[in-house]
Amino acid sequence: MRFTSQTSSDGVTEQLFALGDIPGVLWTPEGAAGTRPLILMGHGGGRHKKEPDMVVRARRLVTECGFAVAAVDVPGHGERPMDERYDRIATENQARVEAGEEPAPLIAAFHALVARRTVPEWRAVLDAVQEVESVGAGPVGYWGVSLGCGLGVPFVAEEPRVRAAVLGLGGASASAGAAARITVPVEFLLQWDDERVPRAQGLALFDALGSAEKTLHANPGKHGEIPAFELDSTLRFFTRHLC
Amino acid sequence: MRFTSQTSSDGVTEQLFALGDIPGVLWTPEGAAGTRPLILMGHGGGRHKKEPDMVVRARRLVTECGFAVAAVDVPGHGERPMDERYDRIATENQARVEAGEEPAPLIAAFHALVARRTVPEWRAVLDAVQEVESVGAGPVGYWGVSLGCGLGVPFVAEEPRVRAAVLGLGGASASAGAAARITVPVEFLLQWDDERVPRAQGLALFDALGSAEKTLHANPGKHGEIPAFELDSTLRFFTRHLC
Repeated sequence: MRFTSQTSSDGVTEQLFALGDIPGVLWTPEGAAGTRPLILMGHGGGRHKKEPDMVVRARRLVTECGFAVAAVDVPGHGERPMDERYDRIATENQARVEAGEEPAPLIAAFHALVARRTVPEWRAVLDAVQEVESVGAGPVGYWGVSLGCGLGVPFVAEEPRVRAAVLGLGGASASAGAAARITVPVEFLLQWDDERVPRAQGLALFDALGSAEKTLHANPGKHGEIPAFELDSTLRFFTRHLC
Repeated sequence: MRFTSQTSSDGVTEQLFALGDIPGVLWTPEGAAGTRPLILMGHGGGRHKKEPDMVVRARRLVTECGFAVAAVDVPGHGERPMDERYDRIATENQARVEAGEEPAPLIAAFHALVARRTVPEWRAVLDAVQEVESVGAGPVGYWGVSLGCGLGVPFVAEEPRVRAAVLGLGGASASAGAAARITVPVEFLLQWDDERVPRAQGLALFDALGSAEKTLHANPGKHGEIPAFELDSTLRFFTRHLC
């Protein structure tokens, strides 16, 4: 892992890095030393590792919980080159939805395809970040909704270091099999009026989770309208399970 | 309103009272003076105003939030005389369920019947308790699940002083009409494996709530198995809306 920049402000140190061809960012408390809980965050579709709401969430996890937070760009997103295959599928899917097809199964199939690449990438990122002295091999959490849920469910299912996860805005059609293999506590966010993921699909994914402790937080509003108070709840959820 | 006893321990003053033939209890911070938020709590079926989990919840609302908390016995419960009519209906319902009828519509009809009496009772209790100097006419919240939801939905719908409510473990069949008239923020608790309220009924009641801000918290487990961390969430919810 190669660090390419480091800046600090308001108690948070932000380091950009590259692991092979994967660009990433690591946030830690300014002046941090020693092992601490680490949250890996997955960004949404068409977004990237440093979009504003990722940064806001990371800074609060660092300043209020003392955690380390890492995020990388998904292939075809952020600083990574366009991926012709993914691009072609996305364009085809767009056309199929405009022609009247249900978007949920198309989104699900696309997430499953990308996850075959991101699961090993993210496991390698975890290996590398836990080598950093101010992070260490402490307890790990995962946060991801929408694309970050589609990619996160198989990741959390396969990665035993993850001890708690916030997931949501995803449906059962792609992820139910992997979801059944998740056994760690999950806080699951569902938007009651989600225009992209049918309500029944979201409820079915929550239902499919194998975890003994799982808690569904459903709120009115569309896909992108998770209320701000859920970030407070996310901080408490990770504190409860990783500290 | 006539106070019949007063005791204090660990920072909480507990006063038993009677308003006409309604026995009640008021919890306030020890030595409290002046106006503060008030939570009215409704107890569950077959339970009473001072069952252990009511007391635990009240004490935390008092000590951690500085609120006043009041609860009264529902007719036919706690210190109130058996009610022959309610008893007869309950016995009949029990027999009908044992004969294979769905319990949800029977429970719903019973709650609707009792609510015609408890809504005016609770409004009178609110009038009286807000006259107490250490309570005053501050913002009011309501907490009630199961029977406390069946009776709470019509109460919250009709009582404009209630500015936020925690409800749950109830179904749409009795309460959907009144629920649509509720406009204050609601935190709604649903048990995913509720053996008494079918999941679809609970989801439909959450859906029916007219509130712009409503948040569903669903957890695995049966009717009586709400996880302890939801009490933490209840305290934060009321603090967010009443302080």
